[in-house]
Amino acid sequence: MTQSRQLTGEFLGTAFLLAIVVGSGIMGERLAAGNVAIALLANTLATGAGLVALILTFAPISGAHFNPVVTLSEMWLGHIPGKLALLYIAVQIAGAFSGVAAAHGMFGDAAFFASHHARSGPAQWWSEFIATFGLLAVIISCSRNRPAYTPFAVGAYITAAYWFTSSTSFANPAVTLARAASDTFAGIRPQDVPGFIVAQLLGAAAAAILFKWLFTPNKEGSHHGNQDLSQSGLRDIP
Amino acid sequence: MTQSRQLTGEFLGTAFLLAIVVGSGIMGERLAAGNVAIALLANTLATGAGLVALILTFAPISGAHFNPVVTLSEMWLGHIPGKLALLYIAVQIAGAFSGVAAAHGMFGDAAFFASHHARSGPAQWWSEFIATFGLLAVIISCSRNRPAYTPFAVGAYITAAYWFTSSTSFANPAVTLARAASDTFAGIRPQDVPGFIVAQLLGAAAAAILFKWLFTPNKEGSHHGNQDLSQSGLRDIP
Amino acid sequence: MTQSRQLTGEFLGTAFLLAIVVGSGIMGERLAAGNVAIALLANTLATGAGLVALILTFAPISGAHFNPVVTLSEMWLGHIPGKLALLYIAVQIAGAFSGVAAAHGMFGDAAFFASHHARSGPAQWWSEFIATFGLLAVIISCSRNRPAYTPFAVGAYITAAYWFTSSTSFANPAVTLARAASDTFAGIRPQDVPGFIVAQLLGAAAAAILFKWLFTPNKEGSHHGNQDLSQSGLRDIP
Amino acid sequence: MTQSRQLTGEFLGTAFLLAIVVGSGIMGERLAAGNVAIALLANTLATGAGLVALILTFAPISGAHFNPVVTLSEMWLGHIPGKLALLYIAVQIAGAFSGVAAAHGMFGDAAFFASHHARSGPAQWWSEFIATFGLLAVIISCSRNRPAYTPFAVGAYITAAYWFTSSTSFANPAVTLARAASDTFAGIRPQDVPGFIVAQLLGAAAAAILFKWLFTPNKEGSHHGNQDLSQSGLRDIP
Repeated sequence: MTQSRQLTGEFLGTAFLLAIVVGSGIMGERLAAGNVAIALLANTLATGAGLVALILTFAPISGAHFNPVVTLSEMWLGHIPGKLALLYIAVQIAGAFSGVAAAHGMFGDAAFFASHHARSGPAQWWSEFIATFGLLAVIISCSRNRPAYTPFAVGAYITAAYWFTSSTSFANPAVTLARAASDTFAGIRPQDVPGFIVAQLLGAAAAAILFKWLFTPNKEGSHHGNQDLSQSGLRDIP
Repeated sequence: MTQSRQLTGEFLGTAFLLAIVVGSGIMGERLAAGNVAIALLANTLATGAGLVALILTFAPISGAHFNPVVTLSEMWLGHIPGKLALLYIAVQIAGAFSGVAAAHGMFGDAAFFASHHARSGPAQWWSEFIATFGLLAVIISCSRNRPAYTPFAVGAYITAAYWFTSSTSFANPAVTLARAASDTFAGIRPQDVPGFIVAQLLGAAAAAILFKWLFTPNKEGSHHGNQDLSQSGLRDIP
Repeated sequence: MTQSRQLTGEFLGTAFLLAIVVGSGIMGERLAAGNVAIALLANTLATGAGLVALILTFAPISGAHFNPVVTLSEMWLGHIPGKLALLYIAVQIAGAFSGVAAAHGMFGDAAFFASHHARSGPAQWWSEFIATFGLLAVIISCSRNRPAYTPFAVGAYITAAYWFTSSTSFANPAVTLARAASDTFAGIRPQDVPGFIVAQLLGAAAAAILFKWLFTPNKEGSHHGNQDLSQSGLRDIP
Repeated sequence: MTQSRQLTGEFLGTAFLLAIVVGSGIMGERLAAGNVAIALLANTLATGAGLVALILTFAPISGAHFNPVVTLSEMWLGHIPGKLALLYIAVQIAGAFSGVAAAHGMFGDAAFFASHHARSGPAQWWSEFIATFGLLAVIISCSRNRPAYTPFAVGAYITAAYWFTSSTSFANPAVTLARAASDTFAGIRPQDVPGFIVAQLLGAAAAAILFKWLFTPNKEGSHHGNQDLSQSGLRDIP
């Protein structure tokens, strides 16, 4: 892929991700008539399934990062050059805002309007730290050991994370920024964005450092990580 | 496969698709007792899962298009000759109406009755444009790069699209025509059909043109799209 | 596998299938407090996911039929000898009743009690015909063309079929017989069993005949069905 | 993998499993406003999907047991040495309690507080026996015959088991111990723990013995279990 095609893919994929997150939030809230659990179930189903489809579709074009902390982790692990990484992050943010505007258009709303949804405090930040740590763990291990299943692993992880964290697992700075421009189910107040992004960066850094160690050969050369373990299931024991 | 077998497969598959869409809409509406969110959750689950089963079953027979805009896109990309494409579209429409009648029979209703469900206006048309653009993006990329996962990608995409668009994502002219003959949860007023189909055709054309460019080698021969990238996950970066 | 191991596997698998169908029906009904749509959603989720797990687990042991009409179809297609087929059907029925008793035990009920759940009439029989036709179509095509995905295709199909048929898709004579011994959400009155089984046999026969023709080479030898088409996705067109 | 990396992986994976089970239980209960069926649907969706992601992520590191009875079964089958098995069980228990504390932190609760959720009596113990028997059956057969699909089989099985057993299928002594330290939706009274663990050990032992026999060649050498049957679908009949 040439760079223009890669950036086009990353833009489109991130735009669709936000259209799915925000659009299904609006639809869920409208139809559920105040039943927040039903609205979040619909939002979860749409986002988890949508991620599977989007990663399968865009991974051959751009790698399907859709997320600045994924791009930073890939850069730190040496899988993408620094200059291209910065371009990726720029188009992710541009794509995210475009996706929010597209979703608002589908429901007859203005392109952007600032959110009033408060999401703050230590419990929420701890949630974002855990959510992002887990997301990077899934991505680093699966893309290394069983890349064909990465789309399913990421979709499944986010399905779980919408429910096991109190923040509903944003786990993505571009997503967080763009959701501040939507005063809907999926929104977040602009003043709450920095706390979320700091927690996401810390969670991603912790996962990248820990999983780099987990997959690094030790001195005695007894590391077997370079073997194809992708078929090992529950048998992967020396 | 001979042509008669291909057309039989395409007819059966499209008929089952409509039986699933319309039948699960009726069941959802009856059991949910006015809770539209629950009815749409059931309709979504049935349609997404049903598509996975139908594409796995009929792809080896007919290619499992089930959708005139998919057939037109495949024709434009040179994967199916024009005359066969027209026959495909004819049996898709015939199959779609047969599926609606089959569903009505399962719930004790008349074979056909015109819908009174209004679905119109710019927000709905924009939804159909986006929904069809995304569906073609998923199909073109996956059937080219990771065809074994296309059934799962399409089922997952439609699961998301039922919720992130305000139109609940028809994204299929044959489906749209046949749903006009069902005055149930999944119906659409006959007078609203042309707007949907125009939006679907535009969305499909935009996706076919853009993704043809994305997968076309550039002058310098630096395009790597012919490599097997299907296992590349998040690593697909030069 | 020796025959005793095959029959043991088929017994266990069918028993677990019924424990899942009946047990999740009881749980759904108890927790949903009268909301039938929610109860059926839970019943659907458990049955669809349970089938994936059970077929993956027991297919290497017994082939994971769990269903007399599947065994009859496999016998007619020449994949299992007649005497073994009869033994399979006997252990399927025994396993089905054992699974109902196991489920009742898990919820503190008596082992068996006759159902009062009326399921009768032409719309229900037509539903069972369609449901069984579709199930056999999925099994015959997938087990021939892409067997690794058969467990997922069957689980997905039944997930859809619980909602798009008015009968909730029994599609299995052993399941139908055993569910008559459970006066719970998933039950069926004993007097309604024969109508269901006749419709199931007709649907299975129609599918077996049609799909045998679909996969039979024609005179000119132009049939390509023996090629590996399992990776062909939407491209499977000559 | 060196032993320190294996134990780290097992610790992290079990911690995330408990964070998912307990966290999604809290979220479900809070949002569902007394509708237990909706809360359990959310809990189920999160746990099933989370298991898929966690097993895909940690299987290449530790084998992804996350469960003392899985480790004991693997030890008995000769797949893991006894000393390492004991270390696995120790870190599973430590990880489980850490995950509960992490979940409580995400929702602003104290690290640990004893549960008052009564779960006792023969029906519940029978449920745990069946649930654990089934879980071990899935794991032993799939990790032997089609290991690439084990993560999906386990996630699908637990999705079903949350609904078809009256105990909601703990099926894991480490999970049972740690859930006694959470007075939330997923909790269990400390005095009810021993009954659950005894039933789980019995169910696991029954499955390990039966499935060892199922996969053991008989005297005449007619056993075909060593062939690759993973692609056999419904055709696996001699």
